Amino acid sequence: MANINDNYLKLKAGYLFPEIGRRVKAFAAAHPEAKIIRCGIGDVTEPLAPAVITAMHKAVDDMAKRETFRGYGDEQGCDFLKAAVAQHDYQARGCQIAADEVFISDGSKCDTGNILDILGHNNTIAMTDPVYPVYVDTNVMAGNTGPANEKGEFGGLVYLPTTAENNFTPALPTQRVDVVYLCYPNNPTGAVATREMLAKWVEYAKANDTLILYDAAYYAYITDPAIPHSIYEIPGGRDVAIEFRSYSKTAGFTGTRCAYTVVPKSVTGKAADGSRVDFHRLWNRRQTTKFNGVAYIVQRGAEAVYSPEGKQQVKATIDFYMGNAKIIRETLGALGLHVYGGVNAPYIWLKTPGGLKSWDFFDKLLREAHVVGTPGSGFGAAGEGYFRISAFNSRANVEEAMNRFRTRLRM
Amino acid sequence: MANINDNYLKLKAGYLFPEIGRRVKAFAAAHPEAKIIRCGIGDVTEPLAPAVITAMHKAVDDMAKRETFRGYGDEQGCDFLKAAVAQHDYQARGCQIAADEVFISDGSKCDTGNILDILGHNNTIAMTDPVYPVYVDTNVMAGNTGPANEKGEFGGLVYLPTTAENNFTPALPTQRVDVVYLCYPNNPTGAVATREMLAKWVEYAKANDTLILYDAAYYAYITDPAIPHSIYEIPGGRDVAIEFRSYSKTAGFTGTRCAYTVVPKSVTGKAADGSRVDFHRLWNRRQTTKFNGVAYIVQRGAEAVYSPEGKQQVKATIDFYMGNAKIIRETLGALGLHVYGGVNAPYIWLKTPGGLKSWDFFDKLLREAHVVGTPGSGFGAAGEGYFRISAFNSRANVEEAMNRFRTRLRM
Repeated sequence: MANINDNYLKLKAGYLFPEIGRRVKAFAAAHPEAKIIRCGIGDVTEPLAPAVITAMHKAVDDMAKRETFRGYGDEQGCDFLKAAVAQHDYQARGCQIAADEVFISDGSKCDTGNILDILGHNNTIAMTDPVYPVYVDTNVMAGNTGPANEKGEFGGLVYLPTTAENNFTPALPTQRVDVVYLCYPNNPTGAVATREMLAKWVEYAKANDTLILYDAAYYAYITDPAIPHSIYEIPGGRDVAIEFRSYSKTAGFTGTRCAYTVVPKSVTGKAADGSRVDFHRLWNRRQTTKFNGVAYIVQRGAEAVYSPEGKQQVKATIDFYMGNAKIIRETLGALGLHVYGGVNAPYIWLKTPGGLKSWDFFDKLLREAHVVGTPGSGFGAAGEGYFRISAFNSRANVEEAMNRFRTRLRM
Repeated sequence: MANINDNYLKLKAGYLFPEIGRRVKAFAAAHPEAKIIRCGIGDVTEPLAPAVITAMHKAVDDMAKRETFRGYGDEQGCDFLKAAVAQHDYQARGCQIAADEVFISDGSKCDTGNILDILGHNNTIAMTDPVYPVYVDTNVMAGNTGPANEKGEFGGLVYLPTTAENNFTPALPTQRVDVVYLCYPNNPTGAVATREMLAKWVEYAKANDTLILYDAAYYAYITDPAIPHSIYEIPGGRDVAIEFRSYSKTAGFTGTRCAYTVVPKSVTGKAADGSRVDFHRLWNRRQTTKFNGVAYIVQRGAEAVYSPEGKQQVKATIDFYMGNAKIIRETLGALGLHVYGGVNAPYIWLKTPGGLKSWDFFDKLLREAHVVGTPGSGFGAAGEGYFRISAFNSRANVEEAMNRFRTRLRM
């Protein structure tokens, strides 16, 4: 018999967002008259930038003629896009990142999961709590954890609680760890990392020979000029960190699929014989063997994000979403709720009123206001009692959702 | 320190195609006057079908307007494409495959590699030799093998030699195995599986509780109506097999990226406690956690392959490539070479003249004729002394390459 990967059986219920979808679908079926507003999943709502549309039309035409047709591209991505990333996203901000350290992919969800392929199974792994569920679940699947306890915490992982009590700034681990996941601006709390805080992490990583997996999917939402966009803005960052970024939230590519992962050649891990191996070589081998690159059409669309018009158009959309965030933050704050985030991130993180459990507040909000949010406990045990509202929505929906918070929610 | 996945260090040199690229690049640099013709990598050359182009332009326009914009799609793929696959590729041929057993992805290379995520590490795994290198390399990476011997065979894998001696029809394993990879029409040999042969495999799988991983990437090249396109055409096939298919070779999507994997709900594996778990559930969990779906634009392009015009256009291109295959097969045969395949597959597999080793013939062909092919030994130890020529090319290139075989190659 083919033996299955038994680690999958340790996973709890469904992945968070399918479970939300299930509950919403059931509610909608029972209440077909309800006009449900979705502020749950962090999915964009605004169309792609005109510059991206123009570039993709042109690329589709390239595929229609033998002279300009593109077959297999490099698994690492097209040179034009890797060069644009290195120049605009890194070198322009003083980061020493070369084009061949950039790996284009179809999503940060994929990359943050797949990165475990190149790591051994004997690492001590830390992550903040609450956290993007993919970090946890992919470690469970890879066999890097024991089973979960009743709070949903998996044995073997080092959880770093980030709550209002520590101002959403996790303390450095008290033990040494081999790998740590960091995500700033943070999903789900909306917190950001100051330069000083990131410098402490880099220092910790150097002192402890720790690999930092840095998820910067939301960097484009930073409004405070003092906040770093990349861990590579910190001296020494390129010796200790792999960084993940995506066009999903930057340029509305959730349904278009393009992202990238930066693996500086200076980041190394340890082989069983004690020798050092650079992760760039391993990730290159992983990607060339198990991946076949991103659609040419999509890469041309991503390239257009860096054109002068593209930059302007993409920024206008981000400003729009951040306008939504401001409305949500101020409305909920005025209602007496404790709200966090939403200033340098598109997520508002709130303490559930009356000490409700996260899923209870989810059900209550859906039932009373027909508004969907994301239960904080879905992001980890320390997220219990919190709730995430996403600013990705039309202005009309945000205003109507806030109206319902004011008038329909019994608090 | 972060420990690396030491299994990667067992891998031999580079993945086959990058190594070919390296040798060609070096030769081109040393002989800038040489007009190199590439018949090596199996990459398509003809533009996308007009129906696909039209559908993708329309889909790009959908992404430009809020009303028709698409954000995150289902990780399993869009309903319209899954339904088209189930109907046209399976139900129309009498296979009982439902739309929710189809998982759309960005490539069969990815899926055939990633499928190991849901399997345990204690399986006995068989594959033909020669074979698509991804099957081997991903098993090495996953830790399912020991190190390689001097012939490049990895300990722990069960190799099923397929050579001219057994008419490229591997014998059933003499031991029982848990998993077997089959690829028909075969890459690289161009051989096909008859209905009787596949029925024997299904019978073996039923008797031995074996999982068949069936790669049908080249099914569209089958010209003989008696040859099955899918393992699900065999009674019982849907109880034992997962099937991989791609639009890469069917519709020229190598640079557009769309494929699918069929996981029937009736295929199960064994958990450590002896219970049966269906692979559909596991693959669904893997894909929802580590993948985020294929670009909407690309899925609309793939859907157009099933329109009446799309079917006709795609078939015309396949007929064109098979015209190339005929020219290659007949020319090389007339030169006295032993040639195989090329009738129901776009690959011609030949015995190297004069008993040359595969890489020696590669170098000789490049040096004398400036033609690039693929060394058979790159596909496995039993491929040594063979060589693959791809029919994916312009007619002019095929004719010129054949002319050079006739006039420049010293045999």
